[in-house]
Amino acid sequence: MPEWIEIDYAVTLDKNSNIERFARDIALEQTVEVPETCVTDSSLWERVIGRVLDIAPKEKEGNTSHYLVKIGYPPEVAGHQVPQFLNVFFGNISLKNNIRIVSFQVPESLAKIFKGPNLGSDGLRQWLGVYERPLAATALKPMGSSPQTLAAQARAFALGGGDIIKDDHGLADQAFCPFEERVGQCQEAVDKANAATGRRTLYFPNVVGDHEQVIRQVEFAIRQGVRGVLISPFLIGPALLRFLASRYPIAYMAHPAFTGTHFHDRRHGMAPAVLLGKIFRLLGADISVFPNSGGRFGFTQDECGELAQALRQPLPGVKPAFPAPAGGMGMDRIETMAEQYGCDVVYLIGGALLNHSGDLAESTRLFMQAIRSRFTERLASPAGTVMINGKEGLV
Amino acid sequence: MPEWIEIDYAVTLDKNSNIERFARDIALEQTVEVPETCVTDSSLWERVIGRVLDIAPKEKEGNTSHYLVKIGYPPEVAGHQVPQFLNVFFGNISLKNNIRIVSFQVPESLAKIFKGPNLGSDGLRQWLGVYERPLAATALKPMGSSPQTLAAQARAFALGGGDIIKDDHGLADQAFCPFEERVGQCQEAVDKANAATGRRTLYFPNVVGDHEQVIRQVEFAIRQGVRGVLISPFLIGPALLRFLASRYPIAYMAHPAFTGTHFHDRRHGMAPAVLLGKIFRLLGADISVFPNSGGRFGFTQDECGELAQALRQPLPGVKPAFPAPAGGMGMDRIETMAEQYGCDVVYLIGGALLNHSGDLAESTRLFMQAIRSRFTERLASPAGTVMINGKEGLV
Repeated sequence: MPEWIEIDYAVTLDKNSNIERFARDIALEQTVEVPETCVTDSSLWERVIGRVLDIAPKEKEGNTSHYLVKIGYPPEVAGHQVPQFLNVFFGNISLKNNIRIVSFQVPESLAKIFKGPNLGSDGLRQWLGVYERPLAATALKPMGSSPQTLAAQARAFALGGGDIIKDDHGLADQAFCPFEERVGQCQEAVDKANAATGRRTLYFPNVVGDHEQVIRQVEFAIRQGVRGVLISPFLIGPALLRFLASRYPIAYMAHPAFTGTHFHDRRHGMAPAVLLGKIFRLLGADISVFPNSGGRFGFTQDECGELAQALRQPLPGVKPAFPAPAGGMGMDRIETMAEQYGCDVVYLIGGALLNHSGDLAESTRLFMQAIRSRFTERLASPAGTVMINGKEGLV
Repeated sequence: MPEWIEIDYAVTLDKNSNIERFARDIALEQTVEVPETCVTDSSLWERVIGRVLDIAPKEKEGNTSHYLVKIGYPPEVAGHQVPQFLNVFFGNISLKNNIRIVSFQVPESLAKIFKGPNLGSDGLRQWLGVYERPLAATALKPMGSSPQTLAAQARAFALGGGDIIKDDHGLADQAFCPFEERVGQCQEAVDKANAATGRRTLYFPNVVGDHEQVIRQVEFAIRQGVRGVLISPFLIGPALLRFLASRYPIAYMAHPAFTGTHFHDRRHGMAPAVLLGKIFRLLGADISVFPNSGGRFGFTQDECGELAQALRQPLPGVKPAFPAPAGGMGMDRIETMAEQYGCDVVYLIGGALLNHSGDLAESTRLFMQAIRSRFTERLASPAGTVMINGKEGLV
């Protein structure tokens, strides 16, 4: 691990522009916010200002040149907190064009904010008692359904042998489906189904709101026996995911809502592997949901592969997380996903499963069978308990 | 005001694509997240799913066609809270390409989350006692300076007659300049200068961190006599600005850090007037900082004009806010800014003022003189007190 924060930027410039100057301007913009000539205290170059570590020319196309620029920042400028880290990462330069963050490394000194998931993929497998095959997840939908309807879906999916049931990420605390009613009924339905099957299917309600609402929702859910939640870090604020993961040792499934402007143009923003992969994992996501290639969104197969790698590859002191390809996946995609993602992955099939037949439990059985036909499932007794403030069980 | 949330999307499509279908897909994606054929409960069309209200063809260019699409959403889907509103606004569709939000209207039923600034431009003028000219603001910088150095800058700017001093938005709670030391010393310096000048220059420290840190910072600042803060809604989470503005009736200056991916490509994201204008104002910003055209970022003059208009135009029940053009502005830009923005604006001149001469108080006097040469300033006794929980003064 480096001693400084190291960030790799893919930069696209007019061929007549000066890349050395452009790179130095990034380093100044993200720290002191003054031009080079105005740095009167020379110690700032050592203590504060980003340092251009490398500039590698890449291909040229017509009048534009591509470069890979590596800049290092002293960890202290990131203030040991998530929002100021993101500010150094991409605060002001998000307002400049044609700068894309393609990878980064953080020093051990930022481990407090970047300790990663509580459970990670191994811990989640222990909770479920499911090994050597991808996990199967679905979404409760559509928005507008009553708690009863959604609880019946949850029950059917659990009876059919699925692993994780999440709320659709648009389910909030709306009058047509209040949070507490929904969570109470869905968790109860899953508990009953689990008692019948002897398995431990997990239900992840969606938590959304300001910090007071989200904390209240998480605590309520835990009291109902919930062991994980769905969360959209860019809607609620990325620091709140880190805060929750530090305080409540349950599982966190991260949703990419409101992140998409980073991926619209490959010359700007952050690579999916950086934002939905490494950053979400470091913030505490045990599972990161993303729009799979070939679905109704535009990620390429390569981008999805890099994203999965960013979630799973070894990182000192940080557990691996599950990729969850989604966004219009159906059972016909299992073959391709099996080839692309291997075993440590969560298949998230929502609408397609719900509409596969009139019988969701039966459709789930077919879904599980399709997975088992490609992997040798190993089941064990679900293990592990939710520890809250050192005590087992409830808050 | 409409009864539903109405959103205008500029859509760019391949000329052979079906715009009716594309528009309907937006309405489905942002609510029920299932294809049309899977909406089995027909009441969802009335209660939940967005409704395409209008499709207006715009210009064609080569193989692409442009459209303006208006979609209405029942307010209940936004759950009467900021994050879920943003989710309906641009959550999943941010992950699709070539969709840009160019304007929107919210119904009165969302007034709880969209009540706007506490003071607005009129209230801020009363606090300052400054009328009929633009306000003059500067930034304390560079990051890495000691609290003493920044306090000396604050003192000089106040003695020179400036109106608002803000921290650079990269100043957090770093070891080289701890938040409490900085805020204590800067506010004290400004208080002393105010006692000497008889004016009321305001100091806005930057607050950043998770919600616990930010709340602690705001309360500490208020106890030191601070009457406003700088805040980056996209770093700390937009809901936290709304939360703070509801709880602490001080002034909020919003900074655009981390919003820039919305503006990189004019075919995607949100128009600056939508995000930095109307949304930030509705969330509670009294002042919205943005990168002015002709500075070191890429907004056009038209975009800046529309942004200023979005902050200032009448909106039922919501006070007007100040635009604060910034990002590399110098005294040589005052003439142009005077023509472009008129009187109700905050000129934010940071580095250029600091480096104008060796004497910041003198540079500030020249800055003020340049403003007064173009506007007929009217000064009054600063009025108004900070009310916290119904009590005047401290928390």
